[in-house]
Amino acid sequence: MKNLLTTTDLSISEINKILSDAQFFLDGGKWLPEQKVFVANLFFENSTRTKCSFEVAERRLGLDIIPFEVSTSSVSKGETLYDTVKTLEAIGVNTVVIRHNQDRYFDELIGKADVSVINAGDGCGHHPTQSLLDLLTIKQEFGSFEGLKVAIIGDIRHSRVARSNADTLARLGATVVFSGPVEWFDEEILQNGTYENIDTAVETSDVVMLLRIQHERHDEKGNTEADVYHKAFGLTEEREKRMKAGSIIMHPAPVNRDVEIADSLVECERSRIFKQMQNGVYIRMAVLKRSIEGSSQNDNINQKWSIAN
Amino acid sequence: MKNLLTTTDLSISEINKILSDAQFFLDGGKWLPEQKVFVANLFFENSTRTKCSFEVAERRLGLDIIPFEVSTSSVSKGETLYDTVKTLEAIGVNTVVIRHNQDRYFDELIGKADVSVINAGDGCGHHPTQSLLDLLTIKQEFGSFEGLKVAIIGDIRHSRVARSNADTLARLGATVVFSGPVEWFDEEILQNGTYENIDTAVETSDVVMLLRIQHERHDEKGNTEADVYHKAFGLTEEREKRMKAGSIIMHPAPVNRDVEIADSLVECERSRIFKQMQNGVYIRMAVLKRSIEGSSQNDNINQKWSIAN
Amino acid sequence: MKNLLTTTDLSISEINKILSDAQFFLDGGKWLPEQKVFVANLFFENSTRTKCSFEVAERRLGLDIIPFEVSTSSVSKGETLYDTVKTLEAIGVNTVVIRHNQDRYFDELIGKADVSVINAGDGCGHHPTQSLLDLLTIKQEFGSFEGLKVAIIGDIRHSRVARSNADTLARLGATVVFSGPVEWFDEEILQNGTYENIDTAVETSDVVMLLRIQHERHDEKGNTEADVYHKAFGLTEEREKRMKAGSIIMHPAPVNRDVEIADSLVECERSRIFKQMQNGVYIRMAVLKRSIEGSSQNDNINQKWSIAN
Repeated sequence: MKNLLTTTDLSISEINKILSDAQFFLDGGKWLPEQKVFVANLFFENSTRTKCSFEVAERRLGLDIIPFEVSTSSVSKGETLYDTVKTLEAIGVNTVVIRHNQDRYFDELIGKADVSVINAGDGCGHHPTQSLLDLLTIKQEFGSFEGLKVAIIGDIRHSRVARSNADTLARLGATVVFSGPVEWFDEEILQNGTYENIDTAVETSDVVMLLRIQHERHDEKGNTEADVYHKAFGLTEEREKRMKAGSIIMHPAPVNRDVEIADSLVECERSRIFKQMQNGVYIRMAVLKRSIEGSSQNDNINQKWSIAN
Repeated sequence: MKNLLTTTDLSISEINKILSDAQFFLDGGKWLPEQKVFVANLFFENSTRTKCSFEVAERRLGLDIIPFEVSTSSVSKGETLYDTVKTLEAIGVNTVVIRHNQDRYFDELIGKADVSVINAGDGCGHHPTQSLLDLLTIKQEFGSFEGLKVAIIGDIRHSRVARSNADTLARLGATVVFSGPVEWFDEEILQNGTYENIDTAVETSDVVMLLRIQHERHDEKGNTEADVYHKAFGLTEEREKRMKAGSIIMHPAPVNRDVEIADSLVECERSRIFKQMQNGVYIRMAVLKRSIEGSSQNDNINQKWSIAN
Repeated sequence: MKNLLTTTDLSISEINKILSDAQFFLDGGKWLPEQKVFVANLFFENSTRTKCSFEVAERRLGLDIIPFEVSTSSVSKGETLYDTVKTLEAIGVNTVVIRHNQDRYFDELIGKADVSVINAGDGCGHHPTQSLLDLLTIKQEFGSFEGLKVAIIGDIRHSRVARSNADTLARLGATVVFSGPVEWFDEEILQNGTYENIDTAVETSDVVMLLRIQHERHDEKGNTEADVYHKAFGLTEEREKRMKAGSIIMHPAPVNRDVEIADSLVECERSRIFKQMQNGVYIRMAVLKRSIEGSSQNDNINQKWSIAN
């Protein structure tokens, strides 16, 4: 398969292959595509981590990157995502990495465009490379997922990460529990794990995964004051002291310091927050490799477009 | 000649050389400059196709590309185009590709800057690489231009494409006719072709070239409602059925679907719209090659700036 | 030392080493890092010259450049400079070049991040690479700094260039004088040079260094009308005629033509304005080389992040 749209679409063996390729790259392993590969990163939402991480991964694989800025593209003349992607395909782009504020934006592309699509986040839907880098971080720590308890805490409803991770962790044998403000939960989410009191969740889990409060996705009234939230659902210094021995802290970042997590804990010994970012580069290298290898299009780029004349 | 400003400036033999070099690149031919060449793409108007197409072409030729975003440059401190280009020249840029909303913006540069200028669209003036890629698309289809009838339909007055194409096609032996709302015509344009009724034009031409309604260049009152326009001057499904055998549809894109052309026809068998985009990359490679070869500046970059000390 | 924050931090011998490396590069000398080096240019203020100059320098040294646009980064979600830089470090960036509107923004980074920081301008504070390129331009002209008289004229208070240059030139043996509107001076600045009448300064100096009126840093009432300023403190055609034989004109640009300097003088024989820009590329190559050589981090990038698993 050349596309990566959701982790739900990935079989366990595909997930394990990606994790093992990422570890191979992290350990200094080399792999380069046999042909020139052009990639474009289409970020319709702001990003530092994910976008820069793909940019590093693409350069490490020797890909040719075509810069694309939404604000100065023809999107501002009203061009649709479909026409934008078909245009990039026509000029020779092989892979597009897309972040878009619309859930399942990729449904209008798949089967109609030959270009490979890698989902870098769709609306409140999925964020498969974030989920995979979380899995790699957990695997590096504990060796496997079987029997682990993972607490996902915070703004569940707006989180692509919660959705992508809960399903996949359950399939890999981990137990998932959720915590956070109850008004941010819905029935669909709770199919993959039960709700737990914040203190129980923090004290009994191997992985405490905090989610960012996405101010930009909340209406005014949904906002909780930062310090109130921190005391009620944040990882305070007090809560951290009661965490299990050997347990770790994760957060997809950007972190709201002193909201989801105490400022002093962001870089503490239990924290794997920056390790997650580092792993992200190697996961994205593995995902790009899979996409390039899986794309029949890449076998014969020039041939495909040859024209009788 | 190192600059490319308008197609009107190009002789027939220069046009044929560019088309033949583009076809050489399309057929997999290789050419790389002997020295490091720095290029900057200065797009003062939004663009996906033209900008990304130049970016791909530049990378295929191994050029070094200096990113330039108007909104974060000193242009926003009031720096003029002239001073911006002279600055880029001073820091070692050899070629600038410019799109600007001012007609003939290049008049203030030529003869005063040593850098090569490639026009990627000036105001309502010229768009030579679009015109050349249109010519390549037509030539691939029909082998030559002699005796062909080309209908250019739509927003003629605001179209750089109409202006660049009409003159060149006439010089190459084709017959050009225009159609569209009469209030969008002027005397100057009609020097290179006659006005025809939309149905006659569509039914009797070898090439039906539709132009984009440029909402961004119209005052409010000049706008025609989309569906009214589509029925009066658009390529409807009904009109397409009455097209000549072997005739083709072209459009510089971005397309306003169901305005200039029925949504269902954009990717129909007669449509060369995406082929035009593909050809654009190879035309731009040919144009860049011509510019690099024609630039005496490139012979001796370091020498030029050497300083006694 | 891997960082470059202010010229004040540089010893005379460090300055001379950078100037001599820059001249080595200008004369065609080659130096490439032994390992892949990733760099990101973080410009929180608009720039053409400095940003593009770093981009050229980085490409000439074969560095891998990770694009970073403030407006589309997580900075717009409220992420701090510290967290942004730590993120880039985590994903493998080795060097960050930063321009920021806050004085001494780098104080919150140094000692806490392993990445090398190169200051491309902080608030009204420092601009060390501009200062170094000014020194190179003066050295190329006069061979040494001992006994030279340099007049720095204009908007001293808001000028990073004035601050960086005055101290360094004094240490190198030159005499610095200032001129311009008295309301734009402060006691601190005058520690490194005396105030002189504009005509005396212009007529008796070896280097007439004009500063840009930074409209974007002035409140409304601080603005002086352009033509009034030009007559009172600008380099008019009349003043230029009274300059010393062999003396030169400098300006960090962008120039407000007919304000700080008569339009006709920008490219006159005495002007080194575009030579300064050219020198900037080689200075930045020298500064990047120093940073890469001085960074122990670069010795063992993969090792640093290796993770037991």
